[in-house]
Amino acid sequence: MERLILHENAASGNCYKIRLTAALLGLPLDRREYDTMKGETRTPEFLASINANGRIPVLQIGERFLPESNAACWYLAEGSRLIPEDRFEQADMLRWMFFEQYNHEPNVATLRFWLLFVGESKLSAFQRGQIAAKRAGGEAALALMDEHLARQQWLVGEGATLADIVLYAYTHVSEGGGFRLRDYRHICGWLERIEALPGYVTMA
Amino acid sequence: MERLILHENAASGNCYKIRLTAALLGLPLDRREYDTMKGETRTPEFLASINANGRIPVLQIGERFLPESNAACWYLAEGSRLIPEDRFEQADMLRWMFFEQYNHEPNVATLRFWLLFVGESKLSAFQRGQIAAKRAGGEAALALMDEHLARQQWLVGEGATLADIVLYAYTHVSEGGGFRLRDYRHICGWLERIEALPGYVTMA
Repeated sequence: MERLILHENAASGNCYKIRLTAALLGLPLDRREYDTMKGETRTPEFLASINANGRIPVLQIGERFLPESNAACWYLAEGSRLIPEDRFEQADMLRWMFFEQYNHEPNVATLRFWLLFVGESKLSAFQRGQIAAKRAGGEAALALMDEHLARQQWLVGEGATLADIVLYAYTHVSEGGGFRLRDYRHICGWLERIEALPGYVTMA
Repeated sequence: MERLILHENAASGNCYKIRLTAALLGLPLDRREYDTMKGETRTPEFLASINANGRIPVLQIGERFLPESNAACWYLAEGSRLIPEDRFEQADMLRWMFFEQYNHEPNVATLRFWLLFVGESKLSAFQRGQIAAKRAGGEAALALMDEHLARQQWLVGEGATLADIVLYAYTHVSEGGGFRLRDYRHICGWLERIEALPGYVTMA
C-alpha cells in the first residue's frame, strides 16, 4: 500500500476511528497534527491542497486525499475481516456508519466538544440553545444502540466490523459530553469487547 | 434477488434516492407510503418491526429491514456500474455519501422541509433560530460541490455513481428550501447530466 498519512487532531474521535482501524489491521500510519481551535484547517493552503471542506480527519494515500472519517476507515479496511462479505451485512454495516454521522456524532460528539473543549461558559447563546436538543438526540442514539446490543454482541453479524469501531469512538468518551454511560449496560459490555480486540489502541 | 419493498414517503428526497437507484439499475421495487406528519413511522408496530429509529426510508429485502437511505442505495447497487471497483474511487464515493448526510442533508433538506412542508409561520422558535445557520451550511455544501464540479463531470471518476445520485436527490429540489440553484452553474450542468441518464425517473 502507498504511504498513509493521517491529517488529524489527536483529541478528535473522528480521527481516532481511523487510527483504531489501522491499529486493528496492523497498518502503519504517519500522523500530522492540526490545532482546529487556531484555524489550522481553514488556511488557504489546507483548503487548496488537503480538504476544501476545511475539516479533519483527512487520510492521505500517496498523493491523494480522502476526507470523511468513515470513508477513510472503509479505505483501510477494504478486503479485511472488518467489512463483512455478505451483501446484506455489508449494507447493514454502512447503515450503522451513516447513523453514526447523522444521529450520533452531531449530538454526542458536539456536546463533548462544547462542554469539554470550548467550556459551557464560553458557548454562544445559539450553541447554548441547542444543548437540550442535542442531549435528547444523543440519548436517543445511545438508547437505540443499547437496545440493539441487548440482542447481539456486535452491531452487525458475529464479529467486530467498522460499525463497531466508528460508533465506539465517540461513545466511549461520551461522558465528556455529560452522557451517563452506566445507563446503557449493553453498551458498557460492548465497549469492553472492543477494548479486548487484538491490536486495540486507546484514544490518548 | 429477494422481493424489495420500499417503506417510504414520496415527498422525501431520502426515499427518492433509493427509487432513482433502483430505476437506473432496472430493479423492481414495491412501495409502501407513510405519512410522517401524522406519526405513522413512530407507531409501536413500526418501531418494533420496521425501524427502531422511527424513520423512513427503510428498504425491506425479503424479511429483513435496512434503514438509512445511503445504505439502501449501496445494497441495490452492489456489483453494478454505480459503485466504482477501484479502491480509492470506492472510498471517495463513500466520502461524498457521508458528506451528504453530514453537511448537505441536515441543512438543504431540513430547510426545504421546514419552509415547504411545515410552513415558516408554523415553525417553532427553536427551528426559526436555526434557519440562518442551516442556510449558511447548505450554501457552503452547494459551493463545495459546485467548485468540485467545475473540474469534473461527475463527483467521482468518469461516470455516474451513487455519490451523484444521493447528492442529486435534495440538490435538485433545493429551491424549495430557498437556495438559488442558478448561483451554482456547474451544479446546474451536472443536474442535467443526471437527468439524461438512461432509466432516470423524476421524484414526483
